[in-house]
Amino acid sequence: MWKELLPLGKAPGGGYRRYAWSGPDIECREWFRHQARTRGLAYEVDRNGNQWAWAGDKSAGDALVTGSHLDSVPEGGAFDGPLGVISALAAYDELRSRGTEFTCPFAIVNFADEEGARFGLACVGSRLLTGTLTREGAHALRDADGVTLPQAMEAAGYSPEALGPDPERLARIGAFVELHIEQGRALAETPHPVAVASAIWPHGRWRFDFRGEANHAGTTRLEDRRDPMLTYANTVLAARKKARLAGALATFGKVTVEPNGVNAVPSQVSGWLDSRAPDAETLAAVVGEIERAAGERGGRDGVAVEVTRESRTPLVEFDHVLRDRLVGLLGGDVPVLPTGAGHDAGILSASVPTAMLYVRNPTGVSHSPAEFAEEDDCVAGVSALADVLEGLV
Amino acid sequence: MWKELLPLGKAPGGGYRRYAWSGPDIECREWFRHQARTRGLAYEVDRNGNQWAWAGDKSAGDALVTGSHLDSVPEGGAFDGPLGVISALAAYDELRSRGTEFTCPFAIVNFADEEGARFGLACVGSRLLTGTLTREGAHALRDADGVTLPQAMEAAGYSPEALGPDPERLARIGAFVELHIEQGRALAETPHPVAVASAIWPHGRWRFDFRGEANHAGTTRLEDRRDPMLTYANTVLAARKKARLAGALATFGKVTVEPNGVNAVPSQVSGWLDSRAPDAETLAAVVGEIERAAGERGGRDGVAVEVTRESRTPLVEFDHVLRDRLVGLLGGDVPVLPTGAGHDAGILSASVPTAMLYVRNPTGVSHSPAEFAEEDDCVAGVSALADVLEGLV
Repeated sequence: MWKELLPLGKAPGGGYRRYAWSGPDIECREWFRHQARTRGLAYEVDRNGNQWAWAGDKSAGDALVTGSHLDSVPEGGAFDGPLGVISALAAYDELRSRGTEFTCPFAIVNFADEEGARFGLACVGSRLLTGTLTREGAHALRDADGVTLPQAMEAAGYSPEALGPDPERLARIGAFVELHIEQGRALAETPHPVAVASAIWPHGRWRFDFRGEANHAGTTRLEDRRDPMLTYANTVLAARKKARLAGALATFGKVTVEPNGVNAVPSQVSGWLDSRAPDAETLAAVVGEIERAAGERGGRDGVAVEVTRESRTPLVEFDHVLRDRLVGLLGGDVPVLPTGAGHDAGILSASVPTAMLYVRNPTGVSHSPAEFAEEDDCVAGVSALADVLEGLV
Repeated sequence: MWKELLPLGKAPGGGYRRYAWSGPDIECREWFRHQARTRGLAYEVDRNGNQWAWAGDKSAGDALVTGSHLDSVPEGGAFDGPLGVISALAAYDELRSRGTEFTCPFAIVNFADEEGARFGLACVGSRLLTGTLTREGAHALRDADGVTLPQAMEAAGYSPEALGPDPERLARIGAFVELHIEQGRALAETPHPVAVASAIWPHGRWRFDFRGEANHAGTTRLEDRRDPMLTYANTVLAARKKARLAGALATFGKVTVEPNGVNAVPSQVSGWLDSRAPDAETLAAVVGEIERAAGERGGRDGVAVEVTRESRTPLVEFDHVLRDRLVGLLGGDVPVLPTGAGHDAGILSASVPTAMLYVRNPTGVSHSPAEFAEEDDCVAGVSALADVLEGLV
């Protein structure tokens, strides 16, 4: 399976560019449809572009669902998303060869646009399914070229007509289990190839707009400047410090500059803060301190600072009963870990019992071609997923 | 004259985008040709795309030349460049109405691509004329879309065939005087509408490449990161401090980030340093200290720092004899000021006696729509330029 999927959307530098509804994403989706067909699974696309492969009567309710996503961040790695879809298919094959009897409907899902690389919002497919993203909200999404989500779906050959919440389909799901490559080095320091998820940290994105005054870099005295790059730089360093002191995470990974000329003091710098913390109070406190630091430095630089919250996701605690069942089905001696990363499983967890498995990543690197899992660990992941599904189905 | 020129290349926000050989630049060049024709001046384009309007026998030698440029930086102001060309035309009209007799050839010039906004190198037209830019160097220039300078000239309807040094044309110039809007607030604090230039500070551009490791902003522990944004931010603040202590200028006005995603620790940040100082030793010392600060912080962040000098322009001292003649012709009571900004006059000063006049800018703002000169000061500038030319012609 890997062999056919690996070349799709691979850029010359080795990273993946599988943006939602782009050519490589379409090819990945064709691959998924083909995998469903070759297994005799009933293939369907829901109203929000999520792909499903069903065994059993999908309308019977209380279905067991597993899967992940196939799209990627810019220059992403091979495992984030695809490992969960491929492991789901392989675990299904394993259950068949074990002769497992299915007592409930079973499905493998490929959620659309999990990374949000194109339209700026993560987990679009699962947010629409569960109704945390509305039809109007989906219609308002635009990519950098001004193409809307419905236009992108249509250009990809999918109908955007019925985009929106899908409560009937959601009600048919009894439990959802997502397997994912680990996005840190917690397992690398243990003998365990697989872990069960406990929670997803609350997180959010804030846009900091720093507005100063454009000027000539060669003639304007330092004391006459209102240079927003200085305020931005100070805020980057303050964010790191505040996060470190609070045991949280804070990252400025994206910045835009106007006019972005070598010999021009910028008129405006916009930086995007991504911050996550173990709980909502800590997150609010850290972001508040970063805002205050930005405002204080802006006052000294003659720079206006405006902060806009672009998204916020609350703490996700995965279903305790399901989590404990997974630990039991895996023999009891399994690490239980929190993560700072958002997932479709986090979105679904508000509506249905949901659990996650992580597969060890020796580099700890994520969202980069350097993310990695050993073949043995991938096999262990498939085996663990099969054990869990066998116990639940 | 202003009325026809003002709308060309004006963006919705009020700033100008007259990039070399783009549509608005071509329109400005058409305007120049029209101005030459209506005055009965002999119009020609030299091998490097500079436009000339001649009175008298251009091959006689020892010509008096005045002018400036019509292209702009991104979101530039209306005066930087055009004020010098328009004042040259107006001063010529004034000399004609005074009945001044021309004892030497006289020309008004519009230098091509002074700002370097498109191809990244300033003063391309005058550098080629004087030979400080070679034919090969000009052929290697590319804009952000990969279009070369010869391709851009050809697309604009100009021949790039003979691009390169033009010593014969240069040898015909006896003196060059450029009038320019002041790019600071030195005159704003005096009763003088016009100043004479003393020198242009040495300056240069350095690209700082900060290379770290792309990673997931939500899952990578702070201590496991190699985040080049931190090193960049620290370098921006260090540059400001080092420049302030040395009485120099240092600006990071342009930055690019890979992959520039909200939830990704960047793999690489590149920032461009523009620095200028009263003398070459101070400039070298300031840039050296900024490099050292970047390297030290990079060591702590696990980030590799590479610094590439993209350009350096030595100190320009304008011809003392010509400078003193200008002061005398203007009645003696005229401020004499240095500047940090590069000009075609600075390039020409290495080859021919060159002088500059500055017209007061009450905002001190430059390379921005806020740059400004009062109408009375513009008239005073034309009158001063006419007085100077009358004394030299």
